[in-house]
Amino acid sequence: MKLEDIVEMHGKMAVALEIIEGCKEFSALIPEVRTNLVYASPDAVTRKDVLAIDGRITVVDGMPRSAGRPKFGASSHMARLIIEIRKVDPSIRAGMDFANDPRLTKWLEDYCKSKGWIFSMIDRRNEPEDIKEAEGASMPWKVKAAIDAAGGRVPKVFYETGAVGKEPVSVLIGRDPIVVAEQVCEIARLYNEKR
Amino acid sequence: MKLEDIVEMHGKMAVALEIIEGCKEFSALIPEVRTNLVYASPDAVTRKDVLAIDGRITVVDGMPRSAGRPKFGASSHMARLIIEIRKVDPSIRAGMDFANDPRLTKWLEDYCKSKGWIFSMIDRRNEPEDIKEAEGASMPWKVKAAIDAAGGRVPKVFYETGAVGKEPVSVLIGRDPIVVAEQVCEIARLYNEKR
Amino acid sequence: MKLEDIVEMHGKMAVALEIIEGCKEFSALIPEVRTNLVYASPDAVTRKDVLAIDGRITVVDGMPRSAGRPKFGASSHMARLIIEIRKVDPSIRAGMDFANDPRLTKWLEDYCKSKGWIFSMIDRRNEPEDIKEAEGASMPWKVKAAIDAAGGRVPKVFYETGAVGKEPVSVLIGRDPIVVAEQVCEIARLYNEKR
Amino acid sequence: MKLEDIVEMHGKMAVALEIIEGCKEFSALIPEVRTNLVYASPDAVTRKDVLAIDGRITVVDGMPRSAGRPKFGASSHMARLIIEIRKVDPSIRAGMDFANDPRLTKWLEDYCKSKGWIFSMIDRRNEPEDIKEAEGASMPWKVKAAIDAAGGRVPKVFYETGAVGKEPVSVLIGRDPIVVAEQVCEIARLYNEKR
Repeated sequence: MKLEDIVEMHGKMAVALEIIEGCKEFSALIPEVRTNLVYASPDAVTRKDVLAIDGRITVVDGMPRSAGRPKFGASSHMARLIIEIRKVDPSIRAGMDFANDPRLTKWLEDYCKSKGWIFSMIDRRNEPEDIKEAEGASMPWKVKAAIDAAGGRVPKVFYETGAVGKEPVSVLIGRDPIVVAEQVCEIARLYNEKR
Repeated sequence: MKLEDIVEMHGKMAVALEIIEGCKEFSALIPEVRTNLVYASPDAVTRKDVLAIDGRITVVDGMPRSAGRPKFGASSHMARLIIEIRKVDPSIRAGMDFANDPRLTKWLEDYCKSKGWIFSMIDRRNEPEDIKEAEGASMPWKVKAAIDAAGGRVPKVFYETGAVGKEPVSVLIGRDPIVVAEQVCEIARLYNEKR
Repeated sequence: MKLEDIVEMHGKMAVALEIIEGCKEFSALIPEVRTNLVYASPDAVTRKDVLAIDGRITVVDGMPRSAGRPKFGASSHMARLIIEIRKVDPSIRAGMDFANDPRLTKWLEDYCKSKGWIFSMIDRRNEPEDIKEAEGASMPWKVKAAIDAAGGRVPKVFYETGAVGKEPVSVLIGRDPIVVAEQVCEIARLYNEKR
Repeated sequence: MKLEDIVEMHGKMAVALEIIEGCKEFSALIPEVRTNLVYASPDAVTRKDVLAIDGRITVVDGMPRSAGRPKFGASSHMARLIIEIRKVDPSIRAGMDFANDPRLTKWLEDYCKSKGWIFSMIDRRNEPEDIKEAEGASMPWKVKAAIDAAGGRVPKVFYETGAVGKEPVSVLIGRDPIVVAEQVCEIARLYNEKR
């Protein structure tokens, strides 16, 4: 990786993290599995090319707080997700996951409509058994399912239903972590007002 | 709460946390939902009487790391679990949860046998729908299920199967967090050697 | 050291740290060299027997914040100070240093009078050159100077003037870190009001 | 400030901090007053335009560790120093201070010679009393003294002798914090070998 890319990536992650850690309302959207914010290098191939928060983002003293620092290779799940999405749309470089529940899903769908964003859904109960068991096969299936459910387009926001052993989560993707952090925090603030 | 109890509780949590944060092998047993270590006051009635790690324990730089400090009221799930168990056996004041998978379950069952510990299991798929939906009804059901499955005795270790939206976890309980931390870390080291 | 002493010491340090980190006014009394809070074991002989904050206490986001955790052996200067004082009065087990300036010194002297506390002063410019240069000779000289200046009694509070290369600081000592933290924070709050 | 400058500055500080926190030998060069790494924006006028480590860099577990995060306005002393230097040479945007003692000073002078770097010295005992007492007059005096002592050129490295109440420190300056961090860490490693 080029030093200037590393610098630009760390800089955007630092600014994005400041946005997230300053958004009290986001605490309510941090799932049990916590959340991560990931940022892929322009030519990312493996998770080592993806910057992510070491130890993820959790809630401390009622506020979102990163457990460790941004670090290349610190994420597995979200890093593989963004790499898989980039095979279809390489302009996507960042993503973040957050909590879901049936009420948020409904609200989120309407919110996406109002923004002109493509919203999609992955029903993990439909995941074939042979794919669940084959090492590394789940992620391509999931991304394909999200795109298929959106009529072949890459969604801006999608949610995964829970499955046995799996918490339901939402994912928002975008071109850089600052934009993603701002969008997720706007969702957190608006959803909090509605409640 | 009396100051001497608060001091004794914070002291034991600090020593226990040092044990956990120094046990590299435990990183492999931290579930997606992270782990918490809880310690109930002698007369604990609500979660506010239970000391727990704010933000739970996660993995940073490959090592277990508490996100925040020990704080009364910082845990919901594990705090309610220990309070429920104490209705049956008040000598139990501390507990910790950790990851589970089918291979660990089998090994853990044998390990408990070798230690003379009661091991139990909660199959969350058996949880009645009306209990799942009633606020606060799940925990009493779970604790009762764990004790029933152990022939009416409070188990030392039990595991909960995954359910839709729920990650499977193991729980080890004991009289204080130092003992609990030492026992969980011994499990982590021995299980790591077997692999 | 006995486990029960270690537990009691860690417990008192945790409670004391919570008091300090919650006292915004104390930020203004943290010197350039930062502050430390130390707690000697009942039979402390070397700095390894003294619990102290690893990395000391500094100011982050405008609030006092411990850089690391309480750890035996983490302090050199303050640990040796408390060990030296304990040769004269073994009931003293804890101490904390904080900033000084001429205005605070005057106020502090009056405050000590109002509390009935012995206040003393060490003029480091009087330290003989041979003592400055002999390894380990400074601390006994300083403690003797503080006691001599108080007419042979161990002072509750004393300040050290600055010297070449040395920032002036105040020190408050007591039997345990909770008491010391409460007294230092009261000083910080009252002094802040006067300004 | 433009977002792209903020991003670039945060990115370079993150990379520089990783270098420093990974350099064990630098722990031995952290002074009692701790160290700070500062980075001025291209048009910095006040300390609010200077990114610095909130709470400075201290030693935790034997390694250099930033107390807080990089933050605009977090430094006073080092920020004003870099702003003053930039009045003479605006290409300088970053700087870092570290411990000094007579042996290091001698070694450092030779090291600078070998690198072709200008080395200078500020004898704070020469600071006129009226300047010491006038608010904000010390820093211009110090920077002028360092440049004068180097024959009118801006030095790469300079040290300040101690004075009453002031610890002696060294300062290294450069165009960006990554370069500064690398140079200071090389000094720390080479000086450590010599001992």
